[in-house]
Amino acid sequence: MGDELLSGDTVNTNASDIGARCRQLGITLDRVITVRDRIEEISAAIRQSADADVCFVSGGLGPTSDDRTAEAVAHAAGVELLRDEAALARIEAKFAAMGYEMPAMNRKQADFPATATIVPNPIGTAEGFMVSVPAAGGCPVYVMPGVPREMRRMFDSEIAPALAQRFELVPTPRRIYRALGRGESSLARAIEPIVEQARQLPGLESLFVHYRATSPQVLVVLEAEPTPDSTVDVHAALRELDARILDAMEPAIYGIGDATLADRVVDALGRAGLRISTAESCTAGGLGATITAVPGSSAVFDGGIISYANAVKTGLLGVDPQVLETHGAVSEPVARAMAEGARKATGTDLSVSITGIAGPGGGSAEKPVGTVHIDVFDGETHLHKKLKLRGNRGNVRHCSHQWALKLVWDRLCARGLASVLSSPNSQEPLS
Amino acid sequence: MGDELLSGDTVNTNASDIGARCRQLGITLDRVITVRDRIEEISAAIRQSADADVCFVSGGLGPTSDDRTAEAVAHAAGVELLRDEAALARIEAKFAAMGYEMPAMNRKQADFPATATIVPNPIGTAEGFMVSVPAAGGCPVYVMPGVPREMRRMFDSEIAPALAQRFELVPTPRRIYRALGRGESSLARAIEPIVEQARQLPGLESLFVHYRATSPQVLVVLEAEPTPDSTVDVHAALRELDARILDAMEPAIYGIGDATLADRVVDALGRAGLRISTAESCTAGGLGATITAVPGSSAVFDGGIISYANAVKTGLLGVDPQVLETHGAVSEPVARAMAEGARKATGTDLSVSITGIAGPGGGSAEKPVGTVHIDVFDGETHLHKKLKLRGNRGNVRHCSHQWALKLVWDRLCARGLASVLSSPNSQEPLS
Repeated sequence: MGDELLSGDTVNTNASDIGARCRQLGITLDRVITVRDRIEEISAAIRQSADADVCFVSGGLGPTSDDRTAEAVAHAAGVELLRDEAALARIEAKFAAMGYEMPAMNRKQADFPATATIVPNPIGTAEGFMVSVPAAGGCPVYVMPGVPREMRRMFDSEIAPALAQRFELVPTPRRIYRALGRGESSLARAIEPIVEQARQLPGLESLFVHYRATSPQVLVVLEAEPTPDSTVDVHAALRELDARILDAMEPAIYGIGDATLADRVVDALGRAGLRISTAESCTAGGLGATITAVPGSSAVFDGGIISYANAVKTGLLGVDPQVLETHGAVSEPVARAMAEGARKATGTDLSVSITGIAGPGGGSAEKPVGTVHIDVFDGETHLHKKLKLRGNRGNVRHCSHQWALKLVWDRLCARGLASVLSSPNSQEPLS
Repeated sequence: MGDELLSGDTVNTNASDIGARCRQLGITLDRVITVRDRIEEISAAIRQSADADVCFVSGGLGPTSDDRTAEAVAHAAGVELLRDEAALARIEAKFAAMGYEMPAMNRKQADFPATATIVPNPIGTAEGFMVSVPAAGGCPVYVMPGVPREMRRMFDSEIAPALAQRFELVPTPRRIYRALGRGESSLARAIEPIVEQARQLPGLESLFVHYRATSPQVLVVLEAEPTPDSTVDVHAALRELDARILDAMEPAIYGIGDATLADRVVDALGRAGLRISTAESCTAGGLGATITAVPGSSAVFDGGIISYANAVKTGLLGVDPQVLETHGAVSEPVARAMAEGARKATGTDLSVSITGIAGPGGGSAEKPVGTVHIDVFDGETHLHKKLKLRGNRGNVRHCSHQWALKLVWDRLCARGLASVLSSPNSQEPLS
């Protein structure tokens, strides 16, 4: 809902958040419609949900003049807006708790369609509501605030339980295989014959494969709808495919389930009792930030050095100025020296370094934009990779730190300290 | 287009990329419909564009079995799919250039609706096309690949010029004011009276204000549609409001236009000839990565130290272990010592430090999750801020590095080295 999503000012993360939650509950999200903050357009979109069992709306419940969702939903439902005095008192109390008087403009946040049931918002002033829309075949419409964390909280704590009561929900069994280092086409060629054969197996007749390519990764998603009269355990039948799929996805596969590459690496380091540090040039902290996005990563990550300028490479990382001079900052010898330097400076078991040309400037014929060297050093062995990446600055940097994690993963696998089939804490239970 | 957008596996950034491009061209994006990879559903969504002047489709042009967009668009247009031999040769040549033979499954990427005009894809195998759909009132439908960089490239280099030829496009004049440190309601209260008054001015009768809150920032967007017979320069009329808006948004405002906070800080440092470094604990590189997302930031950013573990705070940053012991890692004295240490270790003019509790664990009654200390030190003065942030780990970290940039900005302003009205290179020309 909202102009900011259509003008390109805001990316619609609420749509994917709702989509993921629906899938986990066993609701198929058929379509998402984003409309402008205009009463008639919002109302028309809601009335289109006649063919749906449920409709979710988010955004436009704020206090400002472009927040018109309550009015539009009332219009769709063919009822008036009514001021709810109890809701008004709650909003005033929320402001009072923050030490403010409620501004007059927030009063409209207590206006709801006459037939609505209010859904509480424990962390914001925009309360949600549910209303049945006769013009959409009585479809229940759940309206949530647009602020992502308020929407997620309201969905999880209020709406999901209500949906579970209202409908008999069965999530579709699915299994996700995660890879970095092979393209979508290459993986598809290896996997499609396995999927085709598997469709002969009881319970997997409807087996469906999706490919989710998000540079530099590809996720392979298998889904199988259980047939109504089947006694087959589809979860188990899917799991039976693991060995063949794994084999087909080597050496790119690093995990099964929802756990990200960073989750897997942090988990494996933790199990092995190893600590890691970073030395980053072109990514300039992106790798450290990615590792520490994993809660609990302080158990394995000590820190690192962002050596954007050469003076920091020689000063804090101890890279030999002669090596820098001879080979240039983007080179295997410098990446090796950076990893060695970070390991020494932090006293960790291993270190990983990244040095490259993210662009748009700085490239040359010999070392074009996208040239990146990554090095993992564990005191014994250097694992080194030279990448030739494509895309803009953001993509080169993102691919660089993802590849750095993959190299750490590969080194841990080579030492017998990690494997795809080990199950990290964060791995999704097969659902 | 696509199941992965509906299942929550992928965030739909293409929608906002298309939205921003349309706005800049002067096309109003009325609605976005996301549908599953089903022929009938794609086709039905396209046929809904009868009330539109143009329709954009992205995704589903790949080689795998769930890529069905060409077939669906042919269905919507009421024509057959035809193999285009010239396109096939181009795709084979692209594989050959990468040193591969084209897999058989990629052949379908040369199938287009019979009445389509092919749109070349210089950086991928999925070529796009344009087709007029009689069932949608002859609406021209532009179909692009789903890979974001391929879509953006095709839109910018092929489709935008075609649109400019086909339509007489006039972008709506708009002006963006950017703030960090005040909430949406507080800004709205200060701004709405100014907007109301401004609507009396010639050329600004249709003045419209939007608020884009993306924690911790709020953007205020003013737009005014020129009336057809007006001779007023709406751009200039909008610009006339600057002084009053700026005043109303103090002390949170840091810029006007598209330039981000990082853009502004990097630009101001560059103009002042100052270099900066970072010392990050809870953000662990996120601040460095944000600064260096700005192309050319190597002119002002030397690097930094990620001091996640206390041993790195005392070792590389020289924080007194006694101070750590007495005040705890998340405290003003430690933040000050970190900034001093980073400045000394890197030899930069100024340094900025962040230490905090990002959660979910690590909080206490005295220092709950979301407690963050930020310190800017320029050799003379410490500018310090203690934050009490809300939200999850990701939000606390994001707000922390955005606030760190704002403190650097504030310090530069205090020294007369930056101001809102200075125009950075990256500032959008008023459009």
